[in-house]
Amino acid sequence: MIAPRRLYDFLPSGNGYRVRMALAELDLPFEYVPVDLLRAQSHTPEFLAKNPAGEIPVLELEDGTYLRESNAILCYLCEGTSLWPSGAVSRARAFQWMFFEQSNIDRVIGRARFRRRWPNAVATSTAEFERWYEHGYRALSVMEQHLAQASYFVDDRFGVADITLYAYTHCAEEGGFDLSLFPGLLAWFERVRARPKHVRIDAMPAVTALPPTSP
Amino acid sequence: MIAPRRLYDFLPSGNGYRVRMALAELDLPFEYVPVDLLRAQSHTPEFLAKNPAGEIPVLELEDGTYLRESNAILCYLCEGTSLWPSGAVSRARAFQWMFFEQSNIDRVIGRARFRRRWPNAVATSTAEFERWYEHGYRALSVMEQHLAQASYFVDDRFGVADITLYAYTHCAEEGGFDLSLFPGLLAWFERVRARPKHVRIDAMPAVTALPPTSP
Repeated sequence: MIAPRRLYDFLPSGNGYRVRMALAELDLPFEYVPVDLLRAQSHTPEFLAKNPAGEIPVLELEDGTYLRESNAILCYLCEGTSLWPSGAVSRARAFQWMFFEQSNIDRVIGRARFRRRWPNAVATSTAEFERWYEHGYRALSVMEQHLAQASYFVDDRFGVADITLYAYTHCAEEGGFDLSLFPGLLAWFERVRARPKHVRIDAMPAVTALPPTSP
Repeated sequence: MIAPRRLYDFLPSGNGYRVRMALAELDLPFEYVPVDLLRAQSHTPEFLAKNPAGEIPVLELEDGTYLRESNAILCYLCEGTSLWPSGAVSRARAFQWMFFEQSNIDRVIGRARFRRRWPNAVATSTAEFERWYEHGYRALSVMEQHLAQASYFVDDRFGVADITLYAYTHCAEEGGFDLSLFPGLLAWFERVRARPKHVRIDAMPAVTALPPTSP
């Protein structure tokens, strides 16, 4: 694996956070480059050259490669480590939860959270929030149902799927979701938080850098 | 790999289609079990036992395992085959396009197509369609930009990312998108269609079965 060099990220983002969680778990050092989404810093020509989709996080590798899409970066970092399931069916389960997260958590609970935290950034209708609540509660119920019989999401041990799913569910209350309805989720949050290398979503990584000069 | 046995699927679905494309490319036989989404057949207790999320496709393996989430099933089928990139960065690129697809094509263009084809299935506001058009055209432009310099999406050869991306983009006109704006995409569609084992989205798989008896 080519080692990571810099993470371009917006600290409150759950998408950035899942990459920070994996980097911490795996003891991988990196420089942290803040990108302020509220000031459209992900839509400058310099940033769009790194990611034409105009989204954070972007992980720059030591050879200058830019990786994008937080769940894809997570796969890159975790492949072949203890966070990556070893059997084909177990890997399919990890992928399953990661794609489930992308459609049902990230773009639903993550979005509701962003729009509530920064109500002036994008106008949001009541109907949109209602759709997110209906969809998001259904997704949380699918997770709760799984946790009724397991401590983690794949092979009953902490791994890449847990990192993905934790990022936006643990802060779903900021999106207006009532998590007290989900005791299995709350207990799983505690297990994740108890890990020795756990980092909080709002913890600025220790190794930081000034914005890099133009390439 | 445990071999596939049955695919539970709704023929017009791009999500089901991407699994059918991979099964055809890889010459894997399977029984086809139609699930009519318009009659809520994915929400019966029998189906929810296979997939608590109530979605098709579901791939049943020879040992009775049920795999869900079309992109995860695709990873399961393609891992270790010629459709799976061999380097870590190339695999990260394939994952990147698969997660990009999930958020920006599947849930945007795929949804617009479903709502236009079956306007009575779910009520849809004009504002929703407008958001999907804005978002979907942006996603198609990101793909077009990539295809200006490459024939395929990863390592310039046909693979898992092309299968994922083709499923809903090739029929985006059914969702109301004007594809004539994207000559690179149109040329890529032709390359995909020219593959010897290519199957069309509406082609009923040759090996089909009656709905299975209850387990």
